[in-house]
Amino acid sequence: MTGPEPVVAAVRHAVRGVLSTLDPGARVLVACSGGADSLALADAVAFEAPKLAVQAGAVVVDHGLQPGSADVARRASLQCRALGLDPVEVARVAVDPARVGPEAAARTARYAALDEAAERLGAELVLLGHTRDDQAEQVLLGLARGSGARSLAGMPPRRGRYARPLLGLSRAQTAAACAASGLEAWEDPHNDDPAYARVRARSVMPALEAALGPGVPAALARTADRLREDADHLDAEAAAAAEELGEGPWDVAALAAVPRAVRTRLWRLLVVAAGAPAGQVAFSHVEACDALLTHWHGQGPISVPGPLSVRRSGGRVSITRRPPVE
Amino acid sequence: MTGPEPVVAAVRHAVRGVLSTLDPGARVLVACSGGADSLALADAVAFEAPKLAVQAGAVVVDHGLQPGSADVARRASLQCRALGLDPVEVARVAVDPARVGPEAAARTARYAALDEAAERLGAELVLLGHTRDDQAEQVLLGLARGSGARSLAGMPPRRGRYARPLLGLSRAQTAAACAASGLEAWEDPHNDDPAYARVRARSVMPALEAALGPGVPAALARTADRLREDADHLDAEAAAAAEELGEGPWDVAALAAVPRAVRTRLWRLLVVAAGAPAGQVAFSHVEACDALLTHWHGQGPISVPGPLSVRRSGGRVSITRRPPVE
Repeated sequence: MTGPEPVVAAVRHAVRGVLSTLDPGARVLVACSGGADSLALADAVAFEAPKLAVQAGAVVVDHGLQPGSADVARRASLQCRALGLDPVEVARVAVDPARVGPEAAARTARYAALDEAAERLGAELVLLGHTRDDQAEQVLLGLARGSGARSLAGMPPRRGRYARPLLGLSRAQTAAACAASGLEAWEDPHNDDPAYARVRARSVMPALEAALGPGVPAALARTADRLREDADHLDAEAAAAAEELGEGPWDVAALAAVPRAVRTRLWRLLVVAAGAPAGQVAFSHVEACDALLTHWHGQGPISVPGPLSVRRSGGRVSITRRPPVE
Repeated sequence: MTGPEPVVAAVRHAVRGVLSTLDPGARVLVACSGGADSLALADAVAFEAPKLAVQAGAVVVDHGLQPGSADVARRASLQCRALGLDPVEVARVAVDPARVGPEAAARTARYAALDEAAERLGAELVLLGHTRDDQAEQVLLGLARGSGARSLAGMPPRRGRYARPLLGLSRAQTAAACAASGLEAWEDPHNDDPAYARVRARSVMPALEAALGPGVPAALARTADRLREDADHLDAEAAAAAEELGEGPWDVAALAAVPRAVRTRLWRLLVVAAGAPAGQVAFSHVEACDALLTHWHGQGPISVPGPLSVRRSGGRVSITRRPPVE
């Protein structure tokens, strides 16, 4: 008897690592696009789940952004069913690209559909097919923004109900696993469209490897892992500091006593708690707030999205909601 | 009366920010290679120092690695003298490239010569001409290694007696400042030699900007600033934890209670304190030590350069020096 191809075994091993944390009888859903990454994932889950008495289904999200997307989704769902996954659902979502850009809009719609399916079907975990290459591209995009550790930390292997078993494998490995298993993966034409930032990040990887040596995607993914530990810890420290400081206004001395690396996260927590939309708070807002402590020269209130005013007065800092402009 | 060119003013402003922290009568030395960065720095220091009653000299390090390097150094020293810096010295150093690679060997020899000159001449600060582009290249090299925050934190604006006033300016600005001041900068042929990792990092920047948008070097430098704050704070926490834990052996529970982001730094401190050469402790050593806590299955002692053995036994972890192999 011969075993599976090594690359198939590698995908299965990665999947088993996640599934073995579940109790027998638990249910998981594979988020499958029909592309090589999530198809290799679906294949491995279909193989491993029964051995652990885990029930495994799949959800194929049809974003409706390309002509023929319904056919692509139907074909992926048939592949998942043929692998033995059950139930397999197609979720057609409405993406509103006008509001926040097509990538962000598709992501929001996709996670809403996956959340809905997981709730309804009682799935404990939703498994995503992101690979080490996706992670590396994510880090590169964060770098280009000049972001801090959180943004460079990429995608976590596990957060809430979402798990990414394949973050330790390359895209070449998932493609090889599909080929070895005789699975024909869908090739998303968007993967070659330089209108997408992620595609451009991918396209620059070979130049980076030529300049800096092979293994750049793996190195970027390792960096993400280490910075995620840092960001988690610093966020926890900021949350503890916020808890200890309590309701505002706050003493300037008490705020200034918080170490700077923690304080930059603390400012973010304080303004978000006061009503700032988390996604709209830029590091420049944090810097302006912090300058009330570190470069105080009697400056006026800082405007932060919300709209909020952060002001220092009489040795205390307060955050108030600004009245909307009439 | 017309003021200086804006780019010259920008360099002077950056230099003034550092010199104004000094007391009148203090002495500084510019480390000048004759290249555009350090020549623009020398020019600005020569202009600003007298206004603050700071004494400003220069040291030109001749690494003796290229034919004609003595002439290059002599020419740079004459330029510094013509700018009014005093004293201006040429330090000829012996670089041993066989041991650690030419870049590291040159750096070690250079800093030794600068330290010696600073001690002998009573200089409070040595000013280095590194720009934002140097910083960005440094970050990129760290990324290619898959390093953590400290390595991505790049070069600090100030550490010990060394200060880098130009980290907020680009290489294009220092070149423009030299041109505007009629200073002819030396072009180091090593700057185009792809044998050097730094040159290769530089060469990939245009591809990164084409893929990810303009401003990548500035974004990388911003990332370095933020990660430096994180790394400083986490290092300080690790030092406090080491202080509190005291001499080993240490309780497994006490070590495991330290948050992982701090603990990875703590392991490094513990093995270095036990005699491991700091430059030889890789993250893989740290991971192996940490697995004694997080993935304990009775594994044997971990070998760490020193040579040291890190072992867990009876609920305690100890670090001992291994006898040299006979």
